Amino acid sequence: MTDTQRVTAAVLVIGNEILSGRTKDANLPFLGAELNKLGIQMREARVVADIESEIIEALDALREKYDYVFTTGGIGPTHDDITAGCVAKAFGQKLIRHPEAERILRERMKQMGVEATEARLKMAETPEFAELVDNPISGAPGFRVENVIVMAGVPRIMQVMFEATKPNLKRGVTLKSVTVGSYVPEGVIATELSLLQDAYPDLDIGSYPFFFDGKPGSNLVMRGPEQARLDEAAVRLCDLLRDLGGTPVDGGIEVPKTDD
Amino acid sequence: MTDTQRVTAAVLVIGNEILSGRTKDANLPFLGAELNKLGIQMREARVVADIESEIIEALDALREKYDYVFTTGGIGPTHDDITAGCVAKAFGQKLIRHPEAERILRERMKQMGVEATEARLKMAETPEFAELVDNPISGAPGFRVENVIVMAGVPRIMQVMFEATKPNLKRGVTLKSVTVGSYVPEGVIATELSLLQDAYPDLDIGSYPFFFDGKPGSNLVMRGPEQARLDEAAVRLCDLLRDLGGTPVDGGIEVPKTDD
Repeated sequence: MTDTQRVTAAVLVIGNEILSGRTKDANLPFLGAELNKLGIQMREARVVADIESEIIEALDALREKYDYVFTTGGIGPTHDDITAGCVAKAFGQKLIRHPEAERILRERMKQMGVEATEARLKMAETPEFAELVDNPISGAPGFRVENVIVMAGVPRIMQVMFEATKPNLKRGVTLKSVTVGSYVPEGVIATELSLLQDAYPDLDIGSYPFFFDGKPGSNLVMRGPEQARLDEAAVRLCDLLRDLGGTPVDGGIEVPKTDD
Repeated sequence: MTDTQRVTAAVLVIGNEILSGRTKDANLPFLGAELNKLGIQMREARVVADIESEIIEALDALREKYDYVFTTGGIGPTHDDITAGCVAKAFGQKLIRHPEAERILRERMKQMGVEATEARLKMAETPEFAELVDNPISGAPGFRVENVIVMAGVPRIMQVMFEATKPNLKRGVTLKSVTVGSYVPEGVIATELSLLQDAYPDLDIGSYPFFFDGKPGSNLVMRGPEQARLDEAAVRLCDLLRDLGGTPVDGGIEVPKTDD
């Protein structure tokens, strides 16, 4: 792939509750899968606490290195929601009350019959040159500054924000994938699999072992930009598995998530 | 807290399958919760792909910054399992076939009646000065080099490895927590909550909004080393919520995970 076709991204999850184990992150798998559909490869993810210096350091490292950085969390009305201020500092911009965001919030609050408290209006704060990202669910918008897209932590709100920002993302080559599972254990297929990987450097071959139904096996996932190459490699892989006494299952063998 | 009481950790999740959204990580919430029980605060987590330079860069950044780094993933027998080699390079150690690990693996393979393939014996490779971490489930050990503990990605194996390494970890002050939930929305409580946080700088107060049963509300989590301080702050918080028309629920209001 040439560089013009390769589009990369990182996700920055912001929030103590993920690190303490209190909340299970659900945004990372969603974004990984959705970005891949757009031909954007998620290359890294970080989870940091609600600490300004940590957030800024991670933002700066990731926005330098990848085409896009998607942040989740920390954009609510309470004292522990500090993402907007951190993004402003990272970009050397002032934190302002964004006029359009304020208008949206005030209108929403009027509709809901709730008071426009200072705390609620904090959700209209963005870096001064931010573009808003629409939030049809609860009003309070996300925003984008250059290659950083700031979204809510609540999954269903994050998801609509992602939908809203999607048309403005540049797209790369979508990686296609083929999965083949069998009860041939990793320790038996490993050497041949490595040779197959060498023969197809344009593909990324991953092996995911499992122990299911009393037997060890593995799901082999091949990913790459060209379907024809994947199909060709898949034929060779199935032959290999049969030679080793296995019965290849197209699409992989489904095993309980916790053993994956 | 003094520095001798504060023990910190980071988790490094290694694997393309987490980034592509194919596999949901289950190790991070487990480790966050378990480490907290030992008084070890998980301060950061990273997910990186199966790429040597990325793994080494993350290892070096994290092992400098935190007391412990726990890695998960990439220690199987296949070509995409490169964690051991990366840890060796990060520490400037040779990658060796660890004699004791080899003995364990050969014995296990004999018991299982499977062949001691080169690929399987790859699972005995560690940096030259590594200490093994026992794996009673499938034999192939994890290992520790200085402050880096290398574990499997499969959750049930990671969990027994964590149990095995636990006695050798230094412990800090365990953070206790109190959770109070109510249907007082964040936008109503935020200002008072911020003042409460200012009055209790030794506590970490987090607010987790939800929309449940047709109403907005939030769970407020206070964490800190001293139970008495938490109890005192909780009384003030409950008074606050009542003043704002809410009914505080001790332990928080349980809402479906996806809206958390």
